[in-house]
Amino acid sequence: MIKIAVLGHGIVGSGVVEVIEKNKSAIEKKLLDKIEVKYILDIRSFPDLPYHEKFIKDFSIIEQDPEIKVVAEVMGGVEPAFDFSMRCLRAGKSVVTSNKELVAVKGDILLAEARKYKANYLFEASVGGGIPIIRPMFRCLSANEITEIYGILNGTTNFILTQMVQEHMSFPDALAQAQQLGYAERNPAADIEGIDALRKICILASLAFGRHVHTQHAFAEGISAIELSDVRFARQAGYEIKLVAQTRKADDDRLIVFVSPALVSQQNMLAQVKGVFNAVLIRGNVVGDILLYGQGAGKLPTASAVVADIIEAAKHDRYLPGFGWESCEENIVVPQQEVAARYYLRLRNCIMAQVQKIYGMVEFVAQDDENLAVITPSMSGAAHCVLQEKLEQAGGQLLSAIRVLDI
Amino acid sequence: MIKIAVLGHGIVGSGVVEVIEKNKSAIEKKLLDKIEVKYILDIRSFPDLPYHEKFIKDFSIIEQDPEIKVVAEVMGGVEPAFDFSMRCLRAGKSVVTSNKELVAVKGDILLAEARKYKANYLFEASVGGGIPIIRPMFRCLSANEITEIYGILNGTTNFILTQMVQEHMSFPDALAQAQQLGYAERNPAADIEGIDALRKICILASLAFGRHVHTQHAFAEGISAIELSDVRFARQAGYEIKLVAQTRKADDDRLIVFVSPALVSQQNMLAQVKGVFNAVLIRGNVVGDILLYGQGAGKLPTASAVVADIIEAAKHDRYLPGFGWESCEENIVVPQQEVAARYYLRLRNCIMAQVQKIYGMVEFVAQDDENLAVITPSMSGAAHCVLQEKLEQAGGQLLSAIRVLDI
Repeated sequence: MIKIAVLGHGIVGSGVVEVIEKNKSAIEKKLLDKIEVKYILDIRSFPDLPYHEKFIKDFSIIEQDPEIKVVAEVMGGVEPAFDFSMRCLRAGKSVVTSNKELVAVKGDILLAEARKYKANYLFEASVGGGIPIIRPMFRCLSANEITEIYGILNGTTNFILTQMVQEHMSFPDALAQAQQLGYAERNPAADIEGIDALRKICILASLAFGRHVHTQHAFAEGISAIELSDVRFARQAGYEIKLVAQTRKADDDRLIVFVSPALVSQQNMLAQVKGVFNAVLIRGNVVGDILLYGQGAGKLPTASAVVADIIEAAKHDRYLPGFGWESCEENIVVPQQEVAARYYLRLRNCIMAQVQKIYGMVEFVAQDDENLAVITPSMSGAAHCVLQEKLEQAGGQLLSAIRVLDI
Repeated sequence: MIKIAVLGHGIVGSGVVEVIEKNKSAIEKKLLDKIEVKYILDIRSFPDLPYHEKFIKDFSIIEQDPEIKVVAEVMGGVEPAFDFSMRCLRAGKSVVTSNKELVAVKGDILLAEARKYKANYLFEASVGGGIPIIRPMFRCLSANEITEIYGILNGTTNFILTQMVQEHMSFPDALAQAQQLGYAERNPAADIEGIDALRKICILASLAFGRHVHTQHAFAEGISAIELSDVRFARQAGYEIKLVAQTRKADDDRLIVFVSPALVSQQNMLAQVKGVFNAVLIRGNVVGDILLYGQGAGKLPTASAVVADIIEAAKHDRYLPGFGWESCEENIVVPQQEVAARYYLRLRNCIMAQVQKIYGMVEFVAQDDENLAVITPSMSGAAHCVLQEKLEQAGGQLLSAIRVLDI
């Protein structure tokens, strides 16, 4: 009998209990053993739940119970999740989590502690909800050098952008709808400003390249500045606007890691990812491009990934060697000013000839009474700022600048 | 030091050797050990290769060498691959393979032998080439009841259909081009007639539902009858024609397993899968829909999956419990006559009123001087045959009948 504890009975935590009950026979067939949720830790009480007697408020009961071999930390936030996770690992218990904030901030420390105490620290659910990403990347693409990862890693913003494209809703209206439907995370700013996607791409970059990438070193730009006219102009030129998270190795051993809106060609599979779905493309030097797609959030999809990690941790009574990454305190991320991209620009008060004089051979996208939309040649973030100044000195006005995803 | 043997130095076998050399440092980091190809078994000699001294012609050298812990069987075909694989397993050596024919025919027997001798029999490369499918399905979706799997599992036919759509090439011309580009397998009939895709969906059905599904019980229809006019009419109605492999549980514990051309809605991600790429959609009862996409064939992508299995097998000196499925001699596949679908029909010598009298409320698709294209209500394969007869008795002519993928 495998006995587990669940830390936190929020959306994901209650989903974990539900999935274990719902699919018990399938799970036990995989486990080759019985499974039982012995404790659920939460500051609240749930007297009406049929499993109300499992709730406890004192973490040390879990910590000190030798029957508990696997703990699911689904509380979210850094503390007390970090403290509890470290104490579980030190007690030789494996920890599985959906907590992307904690993995992004303290993943290296937790992985080192897991190694030290021969326990597992698994976090499949922290990136892409129910989509298998972490394990396929580490285990199935293990014969590859990973060269690049990019994708749509936040369902809330993708839902908003989809509504803007398909229903011609403005950003504020689409955001309101997302909140109404419960697609927004507890703190909507983390979604909208790209912080949630940044945490996830930092986790993937750490795993792919072996060193901890700190979110505060990487760049995030959200979607709150995207206007309907940008969505419309982009479509006319054969692109969809998506919030894209991206990482790759730079030429000098540093990493490029950032999140920003991007024009994605309609020929790219990412452009077809609609609503709350996520997709991540992983490029390996022998396998080529792999795309993994599915529901990136939500109670049951996320719980599906947490429970898969519980099964994995329970089957391996010893730790999985080689999984994870090393600590790295230095800043290994290329500053955004050095990263080159083509830019979609929406301009006012200027004509094509002026724009070409400043930016070089720009590509015409579309035009209406007020706006001129173009795509520039590739330039660094720094050059982009310099040229914007030039444009404004010439009397032009830059209303939008969105990079183009060139892959 | 992990010493391995490679059985067969064809496209995949030479790719395995190449990938191990090319990415040795990344692979050894994952392995936490050194790796070396000690033997390559082939009936041919390759005196000009830098590693020509590794070639042997006598399998028993591998069988009897206790240093060899993992063997990659990349010969293809049932014999002698089956004999060699069984002898490796009996000698306690793990076997990894890309041989879909062998896994489809003898997978249950090989898995049982692996269990008996506590070795691993792994076959990630047998389905979808380099795309992670088998392991994500078994390990990452382990908290799910799998309810349905469908996808594009043959790159050759998808390349041909893409050329028909995008370049307006006829089927014979597109086939000739596929052969010229080396996209066809050794036996092109296996691709064109859907046999290759059927082997793969039978492997996935066996893994998902736990019992060996024999290819001879399942139904395969290829793409050789698809005409350009069908491709064109389908597009007008918002569909692409794809060769789709599909499996799901029937209501009565039997399975639906088949391969056939299908009209896929352009809203479905599968419709966006172009050229030699493959994609498989897995539906789990808690995770929802997961799509895995990438290069389904080719030397290096396939070798990428074989080498990932080598790493997995080498890291687990004991076998992975619970992986695989049971033997099943009875026919558990629902006969195609009982499977219901809507059908796209291309007809001649009849008018809409006649068609509706015979088929019920059909949906008009398109029409030209000669052809009338419609989509019927859902009906069983048996009903489809009966109504075709009625149509022909009324003087009508049925030129094409292609099912519609309704998911």
